[in-house]
Amino acid sequence: MGIATVLEQERRQVDEELERHLPDEGEYPERIHEAIRYSVLNGGKRLRPIIAFASARALGHDRAKIVKSACSVEYVHCCSLVLDDLPSMDDAMTRRGQPTTHRAFGVATGILSADALLMHAFKLVADNGVDVGADGPSVAKAVRDLATAVGSYGMVGGQHVDLEIAGRRNVDNETLEYIQTRKTGALFVVATTLGGTLLGAAPEDLDGLRQYAGSLGLAYQIIDDILDAEGDPEEVGKDVGKDVDKATYVTVHGVERARESAGRLIARAREALGALDGDTAMLDEIAAYCLDRSH
Amino acid sequence: MGIATVLEQERRQVDEELERHLPDEGEYPERIHEAIRYSVLNGGKRLRPIIAFASARALGHDRAKIVKSACSVEYVHCCSLVLDDLPSMDDAMTRRGQPTTHRAFGVATGILSADALLMHAFKLVADNGVDVGADGPSVAKAVRDLATAVGSYGMVGGQHVDLEIAGRRNVDNETLEYIQTRKTGALFVVATTLGGTLLGAAPEDLDGLRQYAGSLGLAYQIIDDILDAEGDPEEVGKDVGKDVDKATYVTVHGVERARESAGRLIARAREALGALDGDTAMLDEIAAYCLDRSH
Repeated sequence: MGIATVLEQERRQVDEELERHLPDEGEYPERIHEAIRYSVLNGGKRLRPIIAFASARALGHDRAKIVKSACSVEYVHCCSLVLDDLPSMDDAMTRRGQPTTHRAFGVATGILSADALLMHAFKLVADNGVDVGADGPSVAKAVRDLATAVGSYGMVGGQHVDLEIAGRRNVDNETLEYIQTRKTGALFVVATTLGGTLLGAAPEDLDGLRQYAGSLGLAYQIIDDILDAEGDPEEVGKDVGKDVDKATYVTVHGVERARESAGRLIARAREALGALDGDTAMLDEIAAYCLDRSH
Repeated sequence: MGIATVLEQERRQVDEELERHLPDEGEYPERIHEAIRYSVLNGGKRLRPIIAFASARALGHDRAKIVKSACSVEYVHCCSLVLDDLPSMDDAMTRRGQPTTHRAFGVATGILSADALLMHAFKLVADNGVDVGADGPSVAKAVRDLATAVGSYGMVGGQHVDLEIAGRRNVDNETLEYIQTRKTGALFVVATTLGGTLLGAAPEDLDGLRQYAGSLGLAYQIIDDILDAEGDPEEVGKDVGKDVDKATYVTVHGVERARESAGRLIARAREALGALDGDTAMLDEIAAYCLDRSH
């Protein structure tokens, strides 16, 4: 079975898990819970939970043990998309062919539901810790890692700097890498380590996963920018060419150099897996698959 | 020494602690950290951390043990004020005589810094758990309680319903109480229990604190509405009369009935302290002081 088929099966299973762990949309206040479900159950690729499960496998653990923390990372990702789309940020009208959350529910409900979803993610991480009998330092580290990945040194910081450079095409490499590392990379990294942290994985194994995910996250963002610059909208699944006025790795360095960088980063991600003793085949195949998308 | 003087001394100490535990404003991305500090260091009354410290005393613990979690509750409160003030919500121009955060830093930075502050609060709770050697279930419960107090069943839910009834003066008691319980009460409750949860306090002591804080929070909101309706702006420290078109306990039931309700709730809060063996004098005085403000 090819990796594309495996990823599609995984995606379906993750979709079921994401739905199962959300609050019911009939719960009061209904509009908030409807907005949460709308923001999550929208046909995403679910790459973050999929690499979370593949990381659990690499550590020798069953996927069932980390379902809640894998879902929490995807909820955080969905929360970030709702915020990115707001009128004060990217002012996006549609996402995956549907009106963005703030257009469907209003800006206030968009913001509030995104924060509620973020809180739901932290509850699930705490619950997951209790489920697997994690000790105090492990639960604390998982919570701290997720909070750091999201906060001012992570996703929020990356989004802020991304907004600051809006309209500029001349941006130095350091700033570009800062944005990619924080806006995309930080959540990839925590996706691979959150479950293992709760399950008491060896620090060197977590380091290997962190290096894998850091390189993969950077590559993933560059590949996304390549697809935006030259992809076929139907294949990519969203509007393309939207970043033409925006500094990205591609608009700054051109497609050829971007493709080379993505290739180097993917090679580095795959190399990092050598530090792990467990079954890293799935993580390896995911990295290779991401690179294939850019050709 | 009178309670007003004690509260003023506490407030100054809390201000120092709040500043000490924030990220430095020189840290990159600077605007986010400036906005965070601007939103927190604004001369608030700091009632939530003050009752957190008084609760630690009632449980027989030194205040030093729970500084981080006490700060985390105030950070969450400040985050909620930034969000409430946004153009899509209350569209407030000033808070404590200064431009609101989104007016000073822009809407996007306002939203992002509020979320970053929320994440910082969760980091501190996790750190506090490690500092006091809390076990896994205790750290998980503290994180879960804070997330619940903030999320769709707490503060966010309360703010959402509060926005839904905007412009209506005819609102049933159940809805009013829902808003007060969630928007104000939930954070008061978690302020009194968060430290004790990390320190392994007895469930019956935490129950007593929860009942105290639940009644105090409801009373506090009603007293705030009374002061809004008839207070002297200089004494209250903010604009008054802003809720004249809004359903509050006072606009629905009138000042007299509101004052009676506040008195009943404060009496209930003080009674709840009877369940605790420790030194509850400070909690008791705070409750009495809150009621005094409404006369």
